[in-house]
Amino acid sequence: MNQPLTLGDTFKQAEYRTAGNGPRDVNVLLEALQGVSGDTPSDMYGRGETIEKFERKLADMLGKESAVFFPSGTMAQQIALRIWSDRKGSQSVAYHPLCHLEIHEQDGLKELHHLEPILLADEDRLIALDDVKKLPENVACLLLELPQREIGGELPDYAEIEKISAYCREKGIALHLDGARLFEILPYYGKTAEQVSALFDSVYVSFYKGIGGIAGAMLLGDADLAQQSKVWKRRHGGDLISLYPYILSSEYYLDLRLPKMAQYYEEAKELAALYNEQPNIRTRPEVPVSNMFHLHLSGLSAEAAAPIIASVQAQTGVALVAYLKEIGDTACATEIAIGDLYESVPKEKLREAIRLLGRRLSDAQG
Amino acid sequence: MNQPLTLGDTFKQAEYRTAGNGPRDVNVLLEALQGVSGDTPSDMYGRGETIEKFERKLADMLGKESAVFFPSGTMAQQIALRIWSDRKGSQSVAYHPLCHLEIHEQDGLKELHHLEPILLADEDRLIALDDVKKLPENVACLLLELPQREIGGELPDYAEIEKISAYCREKGIALHLDGARLFEILPYYGKTAEQVSALFDSVYVSFYKGIGGIAGAMLLGDADLAQQSKVWKRRHGGDLISLYPYILSSEYYLDLRLPKMAQYYEEAKELAALYNEQPNIRTRPEVPVSNMFHLHLSGLSAEAAAPIIASVQAQTGVALVAYLKEIGDTACATEIAIGDLYESVPKEKLREAIRLLGRRLSDAQG
Repeated sequence: MNQPLTLGDTFKQAEYRTAGNGPRDVNVLLEALQGVSGDTPSDMYGRGETIEKFERKLADMLGKESAVFFPSGTMAQQIALRIWSDRKGSQSVAYHPLCHLEIHEQDGLKELHHLEPILLADEDRLIALDDVKKLPENVACLLLELPQREIGGELPDYAEIEKISAYCREKGIALHLDGARLFEILPYYGKTAEQVSALFDSVYVSFYKGIGGIAGAMLLGDADLAQQSKVWKRRHGGDLISLYPYILSSEYYLDLRLPKMAQYYEEAKELAALYNEQPNIRTRPEVPVSNMFHLHLSGLSAEAAAPIIASVQAQTGVALVAYLKEIGDTACATEIAIGDLYESVPKEKLREAIRLLGRRLSDAQG
Repeated sequence: MNQPLTLGDTFKQAEYRTAGNGPRDVNVLLEALQGVSGDTPSDMYGRGETIEKFERKLADMLGKESAVFFPSGTMAQQIALRIWSDRKGSQSVAYHPLCHLEIHEQDGLKELHHLEPILLADEDRLIALDDVKKLPENVACLLLELPQREIGGELPDYAEIEKISAYCREKGIALHLDGARLFEILPYYGKTAEQVSALFDSVYVSFYKGIGGIAGAMLLGDADLAQQSKVWKRRHGGDLISLYPYILSSEYYLDLRLPKMAQYYEEAKELAALYNEQPNIRTRPEVPVSNMFHLHLSGLSAEAAAPIIASVQAQTGVALVAYLKEIGDTACATEIAIGDLYESVPKEKLREAIRLLGRRLSDAQG
């Protein structure tokens, strides 16, 4: 028992978790399959009722002509940008410096499609209309990520998106939505998925972020884009003979959790407010605009903060932080995304844990 | 009841099936998950015990340093060829004109990787050492497909592969095995997977051909190739957060059906012999060398042959042919791959069905 407790272990062992929907294990698949008849036929290379019905459902939900299911967003978004690039005959596209395609995909967009991204705005703020106005006219596509995950899930004013959309239409720049967390932002905007999607020429949504599925993505747009995206899906090696394990689980968890997005959003605001009561803890955004936010601890490195948080988690049985990321030398941060588990954390225990964390962080900072 | 019976319907409705392992439906997944504990953790972006154990198992089985699980063979093989191309600094690769990469992948190899394939041999025969000797020295990689699926699953003599392998090593041409059906050919060669793989620098195997899984592939080779292939897997959009539905089912069906490959091979020879007794039916190869062969009907178009076969299937309750492919104007063919179902077809019923088919085809040909 003299081993120092790690952040990960105490997070996993705690009785209550503030974030997520529970462990990513085989039960996630088993639960999704419970109501599925064993003689449901597989999709076959993108065809068949299992896949086509789900594609139709999403196309209708987002008000787009067509939808194509993909194994991953990485594949879907590279392909969307490639299609817009081919249509305009320009390899120039634009996105935020912390765009998933720029930092998490081993430069697939450049290595496989030879597209040349222009990085708009900077790492610390959102893309604004003024940034977009500086783009050269030959840009084929602008990608907006809503919310901007890597800066805590910030969102522009809805009016700003409308202006960017109108500007792009006027200039013949296709506007693509990285909507990995589209469903998560609808309560804040008070808009439907169809209303938000109407501002974009193509949209990608994910089924394993707030929705909590196993994997899978959908690309939506006009019928030509859908048709071309299927050709590229085959080229990428994503046109599997059977995608049904992802399709069936995506649909199951979409139906289950779409109605809970407003609740997650309210809970994220509640949890962020509790953290912000502590003098040495700040959330970004200060008031969340979706189910997610980043937690920033200043004055302590990740190495120094981890055992403190671990001790609080072990003592209170409330899991707050699963991992820490270094921010410079004397600050660290983590990401929190609210899911099913938050509501079962007793409020008094939660307050006690966060107060204890604040106190111990103060003690450590001297 | 006056609707003409279709080939597909009578194939599906027949009591007995000569080919395959049964319908591709959700039961395939449910069966594979029966023995899996619900708290088995997901793989996470290519890491974790679920994926690493299976990769190690295949690497050991094939005697290769490393193995990487892929969602598809399309992705795995393009990437293998790209890595060999980068190592040699040459975009030139070589394969058969009916190679999967040439005819089934929407030219992904060319469109995404800009490789330039040289087509060896011709559509009607296998690649021989003499073809390989004509290759220019700058060829980075030669892909051999064993068995050559699109010509009925033919195989070269084992000694010919050994000679090609020795020649390629001498010339510094990487030899890659399209082993989508590697396990299916081992009984004919009387070799282990490790012995065959030793002749190749990299190997791809599939888990949904003879193995009958849901989807999934493995790429095997040296540790550098494995490491680089993971970078390209991320770029292609195949590095999913969770591939476990494919991994767990691939392992389950590999364990289940690997020991049955010799039986399928014997059954394929038995079934082909029954067909070849009919004057108007020929198999290719005449004597199968794996669990598969093609069935050729001469003197009749697919349109003319289909209702004849459908009537035989409806009358006898034995499913022989699921679909027909036109070969010129007056011949047609289909592919047959033996799986679990063949052994449950009563032999007398099978002989009766094939004799009836021969007779009706003769009547139709006049």
